[in-house]
Amino acid sequence: MAVTESVELRGHIIDSGMLSRLLDDVLDLDSDYVIERFDVGKRPEDESYARVVVTAPDEATLFSLVMRLQSHGANLVDPGEALLRTVDKDGVFPEDFYSTTNLDTQVRIGGHWVDVESPEMDCGLVVTGEAEHARVRTVPVSDVRAGDRVVCGSRGVKVLVPPKDASGESVFEFMNSVVSSEKPQALQVRQVADQMRAVKAAGRTVLWVAGPAVVHTGATPAFSALIAAGYVDVLFAGNALATHDIESALFGTSLGVDLSKGSGVEHGHEHHIRAINRVRAAGSIANAVATGVLTSGVMHDMVKAGKPFVLVGSVRDDGPLPDVYTDVIEGQRAMRAELPGVGFAIMVATMLHAIATGNILPASVPLVCVDINPATVTKLSDRGSAQATGIVTDIGLFLEQLAQELTGYHRA
Amino acid sequence: MAVTESVELRGHIIDSGMLSRLLDDVLDLDSDYVIERFDVGKRPEDESYARVVVTAPDEATLFSLVMRLQSHGANLVDPGEALLRTVDKDGVFPEDFYSTTNLDTQVRIGGHWVDVESPEMDCGLVVTGEAEHARVRTVPVSDVRAGDRVVCGSRGVKVLVPPKDASGESVFEFMNSVVSSEKPQALQVRQVADQMRAVKAAGRTVLWVAGPAVVHTGATPAFSALIAAGYVDVLFAGNALATHDIESALFGTSLGVDLSKGSGVEHGHEHHIRAINRVRAAGSIANAVATGVLTSGVMHDMVKAGKPFVLVGSVRDDGPLPDVYTDVIEGQRAMRAELPGVGFAIMVATMLHAIATGNILPASVPLVCVDINPATVTKLSDRGSAQATGIVTDIGLFLEQLAQELTGYHRA
Amino acid sequence: MAVTESVELRGHIIDSGMLSRLLDDVLDLDSDYVIERFDVGKRPEDESYARVVVTAPDEATLFSLVMRLQSHGANLVDPGEALLRTVDKDGVFPEDFYSTTNLDTQVRIGGHWVDVESPEMDCGLVVTGEAEHARVRTVPVSDVRAGDRVVCGSRGVKVLVPPKDASGESVFEFMNSVVSSEKPQALQVRQVADQMRAVKAAGRTVLWVAGPAVVHTGATPAFSALIAAGYVDVLFAGNALATHDIESALFGTSLGVDLSKGSGVEHGHEHHIRAINRVRAAGSIANAVATGVLTSGVMHDMVKAGKPFVLVGSVRDDGPLPDVYTDVIEGQRAMRAELPGVGFAIMVATMLHAIATGNILPASVPLVCVDINPATVTKLSDRGSAQATGIVTDIGLFLEQLAQELTGYHRA
Amino acid sequence: MAVTESVELRGHIIDSGMLSRLLDDVLDLDSDYVIERFDVGKRPEDESYARVVVTAPDEATLFSLVMRLQSHGANLVDPGEALLRTVDKDGVFPEDFYSTTNLDTQVRIGGHWVDVESPEMDCGLVVTGEAEHARVRTVPVSDVRAGDRVVCGSRGVKVLVPPKDASGESVFEFMNSVVSSEKPQALQVRQVADQMRAVKAAGRTVLWVAGPAVVHTGATPAFSALIAAGYVDVLFAGNALATHDIESALFGTSLGVDLSKGSGVEHGHEHHIRAINRVRAAGSIANAVATGVLTSGVMHDMVKAGKPFVLVGSVRDDGPLPDVYTDVIEGQRAMRAELPGVGFAIMVATMLHAIATGNILPASVPLVCVDINPATVTKLSDRGSAQATGIVTDIGLFLEQLAQELTGYHRA
Repeated sequence: MAVTESVELRGHIIDSGMLSRLLDDVLDLDSDYVIERFDVGKRPEDESYARVVVTAPDEATLFSLVMRLQSHGANLVDPGEALLRTVDKDGVFPEDFYSTTNLDTQVRIGGHWVDVESPEMDCGLVVTGEAEHARVRTVPVSDVRAGDRVVCGSRGVKVLVPPKDASGESVFEFMNSVVSSEKPQALQVRQVADQMRAVKAAGRTVLWVAGPAVVHTGATPAFSALIAAGYVDVLFAGNALATHDIESALFGTSLGVDLSKGSGVEHGHEHHIRAINRVRAAGSIANAVATGVLTSGVMHDMVKAGKPFVLVGSVRDDGPLPDVYTDVIEGQRAMRAELPGVGFAIMVATMLHAIATGNILPASVPLVCVDINPATVTKLSDRGSAQATGIVTDIGLFLEQLAQELTGYHRA
Repeated sequence: MAVTESVELRGHIIDSGMLSRLLDDVLDLDSDYVIERFDVGKRPEDESYARVVVTAPDEATLFSLVMRLQSHGANLVDPGEALLRTVDKDGVFPEDFYSTTNLDTQVRIGGHWVDVESPEMDCGLVVTGEAEHARVRTVPVSDVRAGDRVVCGSRGVKVLVPPKDASGESVFEFMNSVVSSEKPQALQVRQVADQMRAVKAAGRTVLWVAGPAVVHTGATPAFSALIAAGYVDVLFAGNALATHDIESALFGTSLGVDLSKGSGVEHGHEHHIRAINRVRAAGSIANAVATGVLTSGVMHDMVKAGKPFVLVGSVRDDGPLPDVYTDVIEGQRAMRAELPGVGFAIMVATMLHAIATGNILPASVPLVCVDINPATVTKLSDRGSAQATGIVTDIGLFLEQLAQELTGYHRA
Repeated sequence: MAVTESVELRGHIIDSGMLSRLLDDVLDLDSDYVIERFDVGKRPEDESYARVVVTAPDEATLFSLVMRLQSHGANLVDPGEALLRTVDKDGVFPEDFYSTTNLDTQVRIGGHWVDVESPEMDCGLVVTGEAEHARVRTVPVSDVRAGDRVVCGSRGVKVLVPPKDASGESVFEFMNSVVSSEKPQALQVRQVADQMRAVKAAGRTVLWVAGPAVVHTGATPAFSALIAAGYVDVLFAGNALATHDIESALFGTSLGVDLSKGSGVEHGHEHHIRAINRVRAAGSIANAVATGVLTSGVMHDMVKAGKPFVLVGSVRDDGPLPDVYTDVIEGQRAMRAELPGVGFAIMVATMLHAIATGNILPASVPLVCVDINPATVTKLSDRGSAQATGIVTDIGLFLEQLAQELTGYHRA
Repeated sequence: MAVTESVELRGHIIDSGMLSRLLDDVLDLDSDYVIERFDVGKRPEDESYARVVVTAPDEATLFSLVMRLQSHGANLVDPGEALLRTVDKDGVFPEDFYSTTNLDTQVRIGGHWVDVESPEMDCGLVVTGEAEHARVRTVPVSDVRAGDRVVCGSRGVKVLVPPKDASGESVFEFMNSVVSSEKPQALQVRQVADQMRAVKAAGRTVLWVAGPAVVHTGATPAFSALIAAGYVDVLFAGNALATHDIESALFGTSLGVDLSKGSGVEHGHEHHIRAINRVRAAGSIANAVATGVLTSGVMHDMVKAGKPFVLVGSVRDDGPLPDVYTDVIEGQRAMRAELPGVGFAIMVATMLHAIATGNILPASVPLVCVDINPATVTKLSDRGSAQATGIVTDIGLFLEQLAQELTGYHRA
């Protein structure tokens, strides 16, 4: 049964983002709002005022919601009196105790607002004395004692949010991290799969930008399954991905340092330059496939599937392979030429080519960046690709799961 | 000479944060605003509308400001016609060319709004044809040719910002990174120094929370200079900082694996357990100082200066030192007891004790977290210490520079 | 058909590790060796000398092996003359070209050792002139021209390895990274599964040490499958894992911020303290299970399976749960008491408790550390657990794959 | 007074690296050795045997050295009997107690070798019973009690090192980290300064490879001081460093988002493309300096000092500046042309150009890589530049300190 409260907030509630966070939180908790009154501060120095009626599906949600809104600086229009309950058992709060923030807080006791002493987060509020003689202390759950009176529910509590520093001169910045490896990864895989299916169903194409870790992590078979199933319409990469893929195809099983044993990535380094040399002798990757020099791997499968790829070189390249654009501006032009029709872009394990693609991609194309290193994901967004969404995970396992989801692939 | 423009924006401009970012940007560019009209959307599904008059100190700033506001979804109330200039030289734009975003964009040519083809950021806009037959393409600077007509200034350009996805169901999140090592570090040192001076001048105290890297990076002399100058009023740490500090004081020069040579941190590992044993024999760190067992280092200097420290143990500790609280809840109580009077907290090279301190610190106490690893700084903020400000830098050099700034310290 | 060469090396070949690397490489390439002669340098200043006959399964391997041994300072006892072939096509080397290192190198031409000019790795060697008038240059594959004479095979080439710096005074250290996310992850999962099966078959137990990311990454169902199948005999953790697991079990679906939607990890933070409070009211986790308060999750499953767990607190804990050891030394004792019978230890997504366990574990127990952050894995080894082996990967996907491998588990 | 012991080791002591680590440790502790006997295992399956006499400067060092050698598998030729001392005080070991490893260990009591129960590192050894009835347990310092008999010194103790796994099939690898931010940074700065002075004194040149963080961290003035003092003979970089440097010089103070306030790096992003456009209009960086367009910054100072620079582009570049090589293979050739005469190379805050330079640099040129991210340093070495030495630190503070050390520079 829906329940309702009125909250108000005042101050620089627009430019500080207080109001937008408040409305966000309401929706986040499956609740609803009506803005009853809004007095806008017309100039930078003016305060604004808003009164918002929030409606939650049940009391428990409303309680949780009000506590959260308080931490953003909104308080109940009609706070009422604090509800106090007596503790039954040492070290245990009443079930509906008020859980504190670390902000300055006041509690209404007998008609008086009493300051909370020593604000500390995740504590309860213990009240001693009455009305104007009351004192309110934060107490951690381990230290509460039977007989203590503890504030319960959210009525009669007011949180004082510090005004935003107006100077803007600070060399520091407030922190707010949203790129994290601590997300449910299986869901993320599924959502990428859903997006790819939807894009294909809509007749648009999927662009991949990939780095050499696709090969190093043993994900070539999974990636090949995605190519075979039609989920790789265009591939952007550098010399390294193609070289390591071809090196693995040519030498993978010949010298005892193969990927199937998991060692030897560091060793046998001259193989990559021999692989490059052989494809140079053939004239191109497509020729190497046509003449039977190259018979497996990602590049081979792209050629066989008739799907385009653009390889753009970098200053650290050996060789390079004959298909690689050594002029980076020409490479950019070749990449641009493949963009029409792209409905979804996915970047795996590459920073340089991911940023390069981000630079030329319209913001209207959804963009997912997958990397084990959060910094890569962050950097892409810092450079202007605000539509990018990041997944911090292991590339090898990610591609296996994605191939499993989309194609039923199972590792042999 | 101040110049003025009217911009408007409509949509979910409050809950999406569009309006707050717009006002922020205005102030950021030394400009001013008046909100002329504000129609608030009362319910989640309603659109809002705002018209804002912005005043910039000069034309160049106004031009830059309007372009930036456009990327947040605000457009000129009276856009006028696009100004076109002809390119003089291959590969060079006119000086005041319009620099694109990757958002959908329209340009007003002969009274008609023309869609920009293939949006791409950091390009210019080349116009061919006239009025309703005009076409507008994005062109990178390398590809513009003499004779091309290019949009200049910000008039006659409209940016279409995609509406925020209202579902909130996305498993992805938009990225916005503000913790970065790419900030001017010397300024950050100076600002911390200024804050410390101000706190001391106000009669309040400075709390340090420190990890063992203070010792490993050779910063002990710099830290001692800060203690001597009165900038370390309270120290929270674990067994490791105190142990490595005392190990260095007791064995630093005896066995050829000393810090002054910079090697051997890995080796000689039994020294730390011997150092612990000696202080256990003395009964306490203070006794070890009093009896002449311990004659230098951070812990020695704190004892000599009569400054309190709280050492709280963790499950990975060897020993521990006799002063270490082995019960973590008792340790928390001891830390709480030292908080009154603290006006500034600084955490260096520690995650566990930084979070523990963040947990019990009021939000009103400014808090700086210094670490070479951005993840530590991020984690602190994620756990609720929103007032935390982060500096990603090298601890050893940071402490040297801070001591230099505050005390005139110079490394011998 | 096995083929053979004699190589020799001289200098500080023992203390520099040259000889051990050489023998390692021989075995790594499925080859064999006999040490024909070994003159040991008896004192630090003496040089040693070794002559080793290596036997490879075929010519291609022998060629590759000799090139690699040269980069460690070994050269052919009988180098012979360099074999020169003429280039057919611009930009393409002969198939068996000698691929360079960046070390000083000499080539034997007409009985004369000629210095290679400007050593550079991954190039070919182009020879001009004859005998004592010959010159040898490094040339990258892109710059070789038809008609150039290029050194092929490994005969007639000598690599000069710089002597190890004997001073040991260097503040720098040579780098050698072996913890990397660029490994085939699927193989690593399978190998862990094999080890666990072997340990169980031998009647010994599997110890898990786990951090809260097991819950955050959505891996609880996979972990529960491992418990059900008997692969989790003992669990060491902190307050955080148990709290987040129980919070998820108690509140996971009630307030719209659930894990199944993938958002809200940051929000709703008071839930964890409420979860703790409820278990404190029940008296213990086992009581919470017995009284029906707790009906799912990792801690519930451990209780139901009758498997022991040890939770040891830290200074940053809220609450804590009643089962948590707040005294870390008592916690260490409780952990030690569970070690007898342990045949394999696996640490996932935890640094503090992983190091704590590493501290008390005999070196004879194999130990795998799984984390998305390479630093965690490195730190464990730096602190003395040399038997630790590291897997840098995503915890959620890792546990899913491991459960799939061991129990046939599939995500619903 | 020098003291001496004989130790022996047997097994695969060469290919496992045991012997080389042993000799290393001896020298590391200012001690000396003579190899008295060495029986080499001629084939992979044969064991070797070595007897080494070690000489230490004093008893304490010898004690420490023998304990360390034991952890590498060497034991005393004549172990003698264990020395037992009685504990005086709860929780305190005798001063010279034997500090354990986590390896299997035996103690000689009354002529019998007794196995140590439950090996654990950093403990003492408590003995109960006598001779063949004796038991030896590991006891942490917190748990030892007055009256316990504890093994002291290193006589009568034997450590059993597990044989190296001969299979070589393991997908895991042993970990050994040497890149760490926990090093004394001030010493590292000084050592780089010393190397640069020595190189200049020898008439050779210093090559810098630099990334844009040099500008972002506010280090431009420090870098300029190094240019002015002649310590920057050649500069390799990409479009980004030069662009951000020139952007800062052209727009640094004009729009309120300047570096001197420390904010705004994220904002005002169109400045970089305007800066590029202006230099394109001038024709080259040198022309921009000559015509007064560019009057300060790193690129300006290089031009004024007449020092060469090579800028090589990448696929993510905007523009680029007219001086940038857009063809990466031509860029490599231009870099190679600047290598003659280089005696020292330093790479700061760049991965792409650092690896590119590492690829073409002879191993005989010392190479230092400075970055706040340990992964950059590691990657360089993984790709073959084994001579690279790494410093993990903040670029801004590092350059300030280096300029201070070399030129007396002080930040204004």
